[in-house]
Amino acid sequence: MNTLDFHEHPHRRYNILTGEWVLVSPHRTKRPWQGKVEKVDTARKPDYDPTCYLCPGNERAGGFHNPAYPDTFVFTNDFAALLEVSSEAPYQKGLLKAQGERGICKVVCFSPNHGLTLPQMEVPAILKVVELWQEQYLELGALDFIQHVQIFENKGDIMGCSNPHPHGQIWAQSTIPQETRLKSIQQEKHWWENKGSLLSEYLEQELEEKTRIILENDRFVALVPFWAVWPYEAMIIPRRHMRHIAEMDEVEKEAFAQILKALTIRFDNLFETSFPYSAGIHQAPTDGQEHAEWHWHMSFYPPLLRSATVKKFMVGYEMFAEPQRDVTAEWAAERLRGVSERHYLELGN
Amino acid sequence: MNTLDFHEHPHRRYNILTGEWVLVSPHRTKRPWQGKVEKVDTARKPDYDPTCYLCPGNERAGGFHNPAYPDTFVFTNDFAALLEVSSEAPYQKGLLKAQGERGICKVVCFSPNHGLTLPQMEVPAILKVVELWQEQYLELGALDFIQHVQIFENKGDIMGCSNPHPHGQIWAQSTIPQETRLKSIQQEKHWWENKGSLLSEYLEQELEEKTRIILENDRFVALVPFWAVWPYEAMIIPRRHMRHIAEMDEVEKEAFAQILKALTIRFDNLFETSFPYSAGIHQAPTDGQEHAEWHWHMSFYPPLLRSATVKKFMVGYEMFAEPQRDVTAEWAAERLRGVSERHYLELGN
Ligand SMILES: O=P(O)(O)O[C@H]1O[C@H](CO)[C@@H](O)[C@H](O)[C@H]1O
Ligand SMILES: O=P(O)(O)O[C@H]1O[C@H](CO)[C@@H](O)[C@H](O)[C@H]1O
Repeated sequence: MNTLDFHEHPHRRYNILTGEWVLVSPHRTKRPWQGKVEKVDTARKPDYDPTCYLCPGNERAGGFHNPAYPDTFVFTNDFAALLEVSSEAPYQKGLLKAQGERGICKVVCFSPNHGLTLPQMEVPAILKVVELWQEQYLELGALDFIQHVQIFENKGDIMGCSNPHPHGQIWAQSTIPQETRLKSIQQEKHWWENKGSLLSEYLEQELEEKTRIILENDRFVALVPFWAVWPYEAMIIPRRHMRHIAEMDEVEKEAFAQILKALTIRFDNLFETSFPYSAGIHQAPTDGQEHAEWHWHMSFYPPLLRSATVKKFMVGYEMFAEPQRDVTAEWAAERLRGVSERHYLELGN
Repeated sequence: MNTLDFHEHPHRRYNILTGEWVLVSPHRTKRPWQGKVEKVDTARKPDYDPTCYLCPGNERAGGFHNPAYPDTFVFTNDFAALLEVSSEAPYQKGLLKAQGERGICKVVCFSPNHGLTLPQMEVPAILKVVELWQEQYLELGALDFIQHVQIFENKGDIMGCSNPHPHGQIWAQSTIPQETRLKSIQQEKHWWENKGSLLSEYLEQELEEKTRIILENDRFVALVPFWAVWPYEAMIIPRRHMRHIAEMDEVEKEAFAQILKALTIRFDNLFETSFPYSAGIHQAPTDGQEHAEWHWHMSFYPPLLRSATVKKFMVGYEMFAEPQRDVTAEWAAERLRGVSERHYLELGN
């Protein structure tokens, strides 16, 4: 039997955080692409768009008016997927099982400036976003009926983002959703068996091997996880074991804002485009348990594969069997390390 | 506490086949859409395209020439994600775990006619495709190193299909992938606890409730499963408990071809467009076990939500927490029942 060569042999990798597998086909980008090509939107967005329902002062659905906010702004989603006043009743009829779900969906504007994105914002402005996330996690998490707070951002219309104004969302709900539940189980298992955080041990190993590290600062490391599914998937892990983002001290908050900017600049520079992704923070559920096992982290799932216009499709085999990727995590990390740390739009000027 | 009303209250539904949950937000399609709009390709495709590498007689990568095939044609993918000659070696280093994977990837042309799709093909022609799937499942499954055979189709460029010629794929591999493993576990549990097939019992309940049935014939039922994730997700279930497609008798094969055509016609008629989807057959693994618990079925995951140009994005919350849908399964089934059973292009003539 041949020894496994990650750069030659198709193989499956194990995700220690979810217990799931991904199929890696390192040789596969050689195939020609006759499929769908995305439109690149290079138009510079104006600082203010009178038709944008997220810009300061503008009207939203139902006649609400946004304030003239100077930095961040948070409000309850006018078309929320979860409702506070609803039902939590269970349903069971034969094999059919359901459960009423209550929750709160919020929209978080990152900046009053319609034309910016995270990598283009200054670190102090990103810090304001980080602080708002902290507040929201604590505030929503403290509500009796909220067991989980999901902070995320969909960036780019290719990622279903229906408005280019820099913003993210928060969905807080009355049960713990699937993905967090998987990560809880795996981290708890490691915690009890090894008396330590799974991600602390993982981070140590990554810092030794170096091949999947993208960049780091004193408090955080950004890397392509060994089990990455999306071509340029990345993860920001705090060096210190913290259960949730509200545990960050002043220095850590600033370091987090800084690495957020640094990583998203690399992303933009990769294909010299405003790099689309879904990003999200996974942290301890707010169900009243201690969750000592939880080590919070932020993940980025960007769809682009070959260029600004050709993305990876998670379809067919991926839907029916398991996720599949065409390049190795090590190759992706090397490419991300290789681009400039200054934003291409700045360099262009 | 309010009783749960599926059409009013956000709720989670349980998938009996995978053990996973989906969040349903029945009121949510009311939100305005300012996001990405897909291009509809209404151009009639020619019967033969000299630049298509799947048309009869044409040249493929590496200088291969397709034969002048009269109905179906199968060949090994020139850019396969899995390779027969490779490594099956395991890899473990600290927390990092991987496993070499061997396999065979095939392409299946459904018809020599470049311009057709399944709903436009005649039942006898679809029957040829069904027979080819049966042969391939047996032939690949009989190989020593193949434990699982995944038959699927990506239809439409929105589903990452890189060539419009009517075709599907088969990926056969040396381990059982994640999704099939989940379905094996759930079916096995039910089989031992209830001495019967999970899907037989489920089908009985659906036929009684009727609300999620799309259409049926003597041997098969097409329905929107209670736990559907995609807006118009559908499932074809054989009435008789069979472990895999090769167990179909002559009458069943024909009935399967017929319902395949009938269901995909409804799909096309919904938005009067060539309806994109990923479809796949889940059946017993070929790992040498008996798998009495397995009840094969075919699923369709179509992305369109509101129209031919607005799809559902499984991003952000869906990636970090769990799948979410905006309409109920019952509502989707009702709409699919409501469209004509004759193809809109035929009616237009
Ligand atoms: O093999 P194709 O058609 O080039 O590729 C398509 O189907 C594959 C199997 O579902 C996916 O891995 C690819 O991402 C998709 O673009
Ligand atoms: O809330 P938005 O931006 O309208 O919608 C977007 O994000 C949501 C949360 O990830 C998804 O459910 C939607 O499919 C997507 O289009």
